[in-house]
Amino acid sequence: MLSRRTMIASTAGLATAAAGPAVAQAPTTAATPPASVAQAPGFYRYKVGDIEITAVHDGFANRPLDGLIRNAEIGDVRKAMAEAFLPETTLPITFTTLVVRSGGKTIVIDTGNGDVGAPTTGRMAANFRAAGFDPASVDTVIISHFHGDHINGLRLKDGTAVFPKAEVKVPEAEWAYWMDDAKMSAAPEAMKGAFAGVRRVFGPMAKDVARYEPGKEVAPGITAVAAAGHTPGHTAFAIASGGKTFMLVSDITNHPALFVRNPNWAAVFDMDAEMARQTRVRILDMAAADRVQVGFYHAPFPATGHILKDGPGFRFVPVQWSPAV
Amino acid sequence: MLSRRTMIASTAGLATAAAGPAVAQAPTTAATPPASVAQAPGFYRYKVGDIEITAVHDGFANRPLDGLIRNAEIGDVRKAMAEAFLPETTLPITFTTLVVRSGGKTIVIDTGNGDVGAPTTGRMAANFRAAGFDPASVDTVIISHFHGDHINGLRLKDGTAVFPKAEVKVPEAEWAYWMDDAKMSAAPEAMKGAFAGVRRVFGPMAKDVARYEPGKEVAPGITAVAAAGHTPGHTAFAIASGGKTFMLVSDITNHPALFVRNPNWAAVFDMDAEMARQTRVRILDMAAADRVQVGFYHAPFPATGHILKDGPGFRFVPVQWSPAV
Repeated sequence: MLSRRTMIASTAGLATAAAGPAVAQAPTTAATPPASVAQAPGFYRYKVGDIEITAVHDGFANRPLDGLIRNAEIGDVRKAMAEAFLPETTLPITFTTLVVRSGGKTIVIDTGNGDVGAPTTGRMAANFRAAGFDPASVDTVIISHFHGDHINGLRLKDGTAVFPKAEVKVPEAEWAYWMDDAKMSAAPEAMKGAFAGVRRVFGPMAKDVARYEPGKEVAPGITAVAAAGHTPGHTAFAIASGGKTFMLVSDITNHPALFVRNPNWAAVFDMDAEMARQTRVRILDMAAADRVQVGFYHAPFPATGHILKDGPGFRFVPVQWSPAV
Repeated sequence: MLSRRTMIASTAGLATAAAGPAVAQAPTTAATPPASVAQAPGFYRYKVGDIEITAVHDGFANRPLDGLIRNAEIGDVRKAMAEAFLPETTLPITFTTLVVRSGGKTIVIDTGNGDVGAPTTGRMAANFRAAGFDPASVDTVIISHFHGDHINGLRLKDGTAVFPKAEVKVPEAEWAYWMDDAKMSAAPEAMKGAFAGVRRVFGPMAKDVARYEPGKEVAPGITAVAAAGHTPGHTAFAIASGGKTFMLVSDITNHPALFVRNPNWAAVFDMDAEMARQTRVRILDMAAADRVQVGFYHAPFPATGHILKDGPGFRFVPVQWSPAV
């Protein structure tokens, strides 16, 4: 497993690898490759009409299967994992943020785990730069909901704002819930950290944060879509251009191999399980009927594909990787 | 669609993009991204025990669906395409070569279209360098069969050998068939080009080409597996290390969405349709039963996953992309 330091070195190392002449000096006959190019950088670019989307990988975190799903037998969960050729006892949950170029603006949707997540996370910054982006050139950051893996990338542990010039836009209902001190006091002990994390990220910029409602255009071509249940103000997004529509479904499911296949299964991350289930089924039904391209935060990278109705559930069909954007 | 020149510029451009400071100068607020980082480089690295495999993308070519399959109704083919969310009238056929690091050797298996294929192909050279490899450091090139998309990358149009120091190993039965002048004379007009292509590539090195038989170890940990039908000497490979086995199934199928799902369908590329069908079913059955990781030449990049039995056919389940090799 790569450390963060190795990963950053990895991305920087492409400078050497791709330049050509320097490659001949690399020990290419050794048993292992030069660490500088251990893996390709984690970004993938595609278009929706004239809008350009770049999926940027933030890494992964392994989650034990035990206790992950509230209403499924562990045997059934293991069977679903086996059908997807995933590990027997842990789910590798991945994180994929989006950078959208639309109307001359650079827009980031969700920000990854930053430098406060598991050591296998926090890759967004390096992959974002590898994709040719500069954090100081980001105009807008849109947040889908306030879970730590979506917001922590906004601010480093030392307090630095990662996207210093960006306007930050958040769902009104998320702000109302998580910034409410009474809700924090009343919350079970296990949730106190989440409330504190929200304050760590948004506290220093509280007066500048813009709040949006579902149904509103939050950036050129990007419309917020109500998708509550996972959290009180959890939001999906419709991205439309040139007669094409893309649906960023955010966290209506965690890993598709479990929750797209079995849309009635309730992950422990869903704060209102029944509302989350209804939202999930409604949006998956719509995506399948309309055959629109979708993006997930927790689907395997590059986390985009289509939804196919299949038996009582659905199937996530990843896009075919293309060198042509 | 990227031209080859753009793609090469793209890979070289990562030097600038990944270096960091230079990124701030990129016009990241423009409507389109810097062309230098249009798409991530097409390589993906994974391990089989102690053996390291790098999938290297050579691009794609669009093939009309009409006439592609000998024994299926076009309506059924279109339905299979729709279930995979592939285009209605053309199949984007992709090409993925492998670089294997084993026993201190760098081994290339199949070489892509070189500079004589469709303009959307021939990306192997740039992606190979982006992955940190130098053509002059390749010890061995193993060829699965003699179709142009597998061998043309061995030699440039101008006659240059692409892997100048590599020993080239080819299936004995392929050599016997394609280098036989009587077979060339007797071949239908449409196949004469394929015979000529084989001579273009292998003619200048004919005395140095090593020929192998199925069942033999052709490089450290890599064993040739008989898989004839697609061509007379078409070969698959078992790659084994540390108790793990990987099956490179080469062209036992073209696109999995068509031919893994429907293993009885016969692509026009299969020279002996019935033998190819038997080989396909036998190897897919084995891969499904043993749950081994497989690699295809024509599966969507990175062209590796597992085989699941599903109804009368099978399903190709791609691996989950991981930054950890």
